[in-house]
Amino acid sequence: MPASALANAADAPILLREMAGPVAVLTLNRPAQRNSLSEALIAELHQALAEIGADASVRAVVIAASGPAFCAGHDLKELTARRSDADRGRAFFAKLMNACSAMMQAIVHLPKPVVASVQGVATAAGCQLVASCDLAVASEAAAFATPGVDIGLFCSTPMVALSRNVPRKQAMEMLLTGEPVPAARARDMGLVNQVVAHGTEHDAAIALAQRVARKSAHTIKLGKEAFYRQAEMSLADAYRYAAEVMTENMMARDAEEGIKAFIEKRAPNWRDE
Amino acid sequence: MPASALANAADAPILLREMAGPVAVLTLNRPAQRNSLSEALIAELHQALAEIGADASVRAVVIAASGPAFCAGHDLKELTARRSDADRGRAFFAKLMNACSAMMQAIVHLPKPVVASVQGVATAAGCQLVASCDLAVASEAAAFATPGVDIGLFCSTPMVALSRNVPRKQAMEMLLTGEPVPAARARDMGLVNQVVAHGTEHDAAIALAQRVARKSAHTIKLGKEAFYRQAEMSLADAYRYAAEVMTENMMARDAEEGIKAFIEKRAPNWRDE
Amino acid sequence: MPASALANAADAPILLREMAGPVAVLTLNRPAQRNSLSEALIAELHQALAEIGADASVRAVVIAASGPAFCAGHDLKELTARRSDADRGRAFFAKLMNACSAMMQAIVHLPKPVVASVQGVATAAGCQLVASCDLAVASEAAAFATPGVDIGLFCSTPMVALSRNVPRKQAMEMLLTGEPVPAARARDMGLVNQVVAHGTEHDAAIALAQRVARKSAHTIKLGKEAFYRQAEMSLADAYRYAAEVMTENMMARDAEEGIKAFIEKRAPNWRDE
Repeated sequence: MPASALANAADAPILLREMAGPVAVLTLNRPAQRNSLSEALIAELHQALAEIGADASVRAVVIAASGPAFCAGHDLKELTARRSDADRGRAFFAKLMNACSAMMQAIVHLPKPVVASVQGVATAAGCQLVASCDLAVASEAAAFATPGVDIGLFCSTPMVALSRNVPRKQAMEMLLTGEPVPAARARDMGLVNQVVAHGTEHDAAIALAQRVARKSAHTIKLGKEAFYRQAEMSLADAYRYAAEVMTENMMARDAEEGIKAFIEKRAPNWRDE
Repeated sequence: MPASALANAADAPILLREMAGPVAVLTLNRPAQRNSLSEALIAELHQALAEIGADASVRAVVIAASGPAFCAGHDLKELTARRSDADRGRAFFAKLMNACSAMMQAIVHLPKPVVASVQGVATAAGCQLVASCDLAVASEAAAFATPGVDIGLFCSTPMVALSRNVPRKQAMEMLLTGEPVPAARARDMGLVNQVVAHGTEHDAAIALAQRVARKSAHTIKLGKEAFYRQAEMSLADAYRYAAEVMTENMMARDAEEGIKAFIEKRAPNWRDE
Repeated sequence: MPASALANAADAPILLREMAGPVAVLTLNRPAQRNSLSEALIAELHQALAEIGADASVRAVVIAASGPAFCAGHDLKELTARRSDADRGRAFFAKLMNACSAMMQAIVHLPKPVVASVQGVATAAGCQLVASCDLAVASEAAAFATPGVDIGLFCSTPMVALSRNVPRKQAMEMLLTGEPVPAARARDMGLVNQVVAHGTEHDAAIALAQRVARKSAHTIKLGKEAFYRQAEMSLADAYRYAAEVMTENMMARDAEEGIKAFIEKRAPNWRDE
């Protein structure tokens, strides 16, 4: 069932999930709400990531979105509705922020590569979602912003991911001004990997994910985990740790097969994992 | 009184301070000394920042400079004069380096955004001053250098700020060669946000500061502090901390007003702070 | 004896060492093996760096390579041969990874600037070697890749250096896809400092090293060490440390001479170190 057919149905699922070969495509499907990350959508995304993590048939993930906007961040109407709680919403906000942060970190900790496919505007937690993915492909019509400052709510959790993607002054400019950054500039800054003609970003993201999906799943799992762990270490600790990872990797079946295939000039046969 | 009229007066203040709406403009005013950061100028800058931090009518700061150079770093004549101290200047140098570092960190800790307006060459601690600001606008005629290495005095304190703005090899090139980087390249590297036609950088910096000054002061204060604090944390700690900041921010009056105004499609009325 | 004459000789040294004025040029000389980093070549490089570190007549280092490739990373045939060890090679791999990491860190800890001269493809540990140098000059025909993922062996130790040079998503793209990055893009990302016409990279790298070699050796030593140390500190700790380094630097003979020479508008006479 194509995403477009579902887009406006009242009972449409808020998260679509299809396979494109070994690539799971998760599509945010609340286009009328600009795919804002309601509590329910955060929970569905987190759940889908958990299932994918445990499913050996999935080798990579694409996160895409229905409609003109990629993702507008949190659902302000949902937030505002909780102002009438006895605690003026505090408990709900805290729970939501923690749930959202946990979902973003689940992308980082997923043992499979995650590629964002950004067809439109990605703002606030939507920009954070792109920054949290391992890779990102954007339409030349896409734009990125952290405009919370304009509604009195600084994009503090989005900045955790954003400031680990782009240089400090460029992150600060986005956060303090709230102004949108066009796709080409976002690529120069390091927030996205590729900018492609509008309408081709979905295919380009899937093609990129499929290229990575052809690698050894075991190797990608080891490497992705090591990447984010060593990033938080001193140089000496990072080398100690990475040398151990390399040694374990060398002893694994896929490295033995991969190196042999390379020397024998043939394609490797990876073990399913 | 225009800065130019003061430039050569023997009794001119070494730091000018004016308001441009809610924006405080601090102008280094030792043009004959290429605005070098003498002990007195460092103290005046630090004092002005402290006053601005406590002044609710100031919403943003621009740091600019009189004359052709933005800032040439420390005052070498002042340093050299202390070679005749009993300790060959050691105590003075240590005090000066600590005072300068404290002033630079006062910019980072100021609860209001600080924008550099760079009309000319910014070298050594002058380059550090630009790097320490949250944002920077530069004339296309501006240039940036850390040339201490040419006089046997490596730009070690400037590199603390510089290396937190630009990629490692680019910082190393500036520090090891001492050679100037033109404004356009500095923008590509992340050291400045905007490069504009020469002579328009002052207006552009004030315009940028005024755009940020229209946001909620409370929100900017929360967000700026959180930005620099989370930058030094692990991902997990940064998310834990930022989720708390977001929740406090949501409970504050300006977020409630800002979100309401957004939903009602009207301009928000921020609380003075 | 020119490098080319040695390139194919069976008994040719695997590492050439010449002086270009005060610059030591180390040339990887296993062109038939694409200059792969065998255990012996890693040991020779480490030994050469140790000797250079102790030799006051050497003021800077260039690392270059013979033949069309810069360096293809580890020697896969050497690795594979150890699969027949009783432990299937584990002890050898662990020793090799630690030896390689120690050699890369010896570049970082060398008290003299190190410039890579990249004439061709630099892959895996070859890319790491470039990333580990303080500065890098590349031919426009050079390219950079971390393709271990294609043989089931993620470039985990290379990523330690790579991810400290380039933005996160760009590093991830290289590591997950294994695809080559052309020199111009590598410069934009921060992996190299200069891209020059093919065939001129060697002269350009030596010229750059010689420019740095003319500075005070004492000052470069202090500054380079401080650069990498402060990079791992919080802002407050980095400033405390750098202010101490600056004070020590000011008290040293070369800063006194350098500042004096600058004020007297003459060339400084650095002390040999």
